[in-house]
Amino acid sequence: MSGETIGIIGGTGNLGAAIAWRLARAGHAVVIGSRKAEAAVEKAAELGHGLTGMTNAEAAAKADLIIVTVPFSAQEATLADIKPHVAGKIVVDTTVPLVPPKVMRVQLPAEGSAAARAQGLLGDGVTMVSAFHNVAAHKLAQDIDVGCDVLVFGDDKAARGRVVALAYAMGLRGLHAGALVNSAAAEAMTSILIFMNKTYRVDGAGIRITGELVPPVD
Amino acid sequence: MSGETIGIIGGTGNLGAAIAWRLARAGHAVVIGSRKAEAAVEKAAELGHGLTGMTNAEAAAKADLIIVTVPFSAQEATLADIKPHVAGKIVVDTTVPLVPPKVMRVQLPAEGSAAARAQGLLGDGVTMVSAFHNVAAHKLAQDIDVGCDVLVFGDDKAARGRVVALAYAMGLRGLHAGALVNSAAAEAMTSILIFMNKTYRVDGAGIRITGELVPPVD
Repeated sequence: MSGETIGIIGGTGNLGAAIAWRLARAGHAVVIGSRKAEAAVEKAAELGHGLTGMTNAEAAAKADLIIVTVPFSAQEATLADIKPHVAGKIVVDTTVPLVPPKVMRVQLPAEGSAAARAQGLLGDGVTMVSAFHNVAAHKLAQDIDVGCDVLVFGDDKAARGRVVALAYAMGLRGLHAGALVNSAAAEAMTSILIFMNKTYRVDGAGIRITGELVPPVD
Repeated sequence: MSGETIGIIGGTGNLGAAIAWRLARAGHAVVIGSRKAEAAVEKAAELGHGLTGMTNAEAAAKADLIIVTVPFSAQEATLADIKPHVAGKIVVDTTVPLVPPKVMRVQLPAEGSAAARAQGLLGDGVTMVSAFHNVAAHKLAQDIDVGCDVLVFGDDKAARGRVVALAYAMGLRGLHAGALVNSAAAEAMTSILIFMNKTYRVDGAGIRITGELVPPVD
């Protein structure tokens, strides 16, 4: 897989572990990070497929492409932790700006989106992409068809394309969804999906774009 | 159908006319409004199914439930026009806050959503609901399966339920999607769908909530 190493920041969490597992199983070189190295080492061993564990900072330093999977409340501290190691790299933010206890209520941050906030915190030296906001982690962790599209946002089309390809490697349909600012749509949709799970007793609602889509030429 | 009259404000536009046609065809009493009465009368005759046309203010006065289908740029003036006639009624806003020329870019208004803006403009004397943001008007105007869910937002659950029922009457799956503030998710999603239409050459992309949904008890 081209020698690229993917680093999952917050890789011991439900979403991070599931992404790491699916990517490693597909043949990608993946390392997972956590605040404590021991927790990451233990989770990596549990997940198998050649995964290795280390601190978040070490995972960011070792990786060529970085996927950040931490709760909104941990976003700022986590990005500060990895910032020295991400210059010139693609950083994929998956943060959904949920504000407990009202997680079924859309509460976008002042920056407009968690992705815009991440770009502000990491600076223009990184190529920011956002994705994986609407995927139920517990479904992604199983060997099943998740039944959810992955909307991929970013101002750099080539970087977006790499994340679309990663979604496909994970068995999901990845879709270009436009500029990074558009991430607000998918981030907000997560509160709707949590509302659906409760109101319609769904085990992990997701979204699918309908209509006949033609894969783009490039 | 219980004697209720539905008024479509901006009913000569693509979305308004399609909603009016589907509701009237399903047996609802529907009147359509426009800035100019003659245009509304002409469109009503064209659509058939017992539809009648008049000014927006007259349609709002005559209706028990009002659906506003005007472009974002016309929202403020239109709501001012109907405001004297909507006290105590359910007003369904369908406004998507697109800001040309960058309609593929999410640009939510300062109020957080067009629905919140509508509530602010009409005041607390109306029961605000928002819906129909993600439905392609040209598909809705045809006798086909549109293939798109209708997310319905509002702080009054019973009012939301009436709009969910109207969506079903139109041949669409209507879904409770939570508080009015959540409207931001569907409004923002429309820019994504326009992006999809261009990028993947789709003839009217829509969204579908995935997962096994159980209709709620009430």
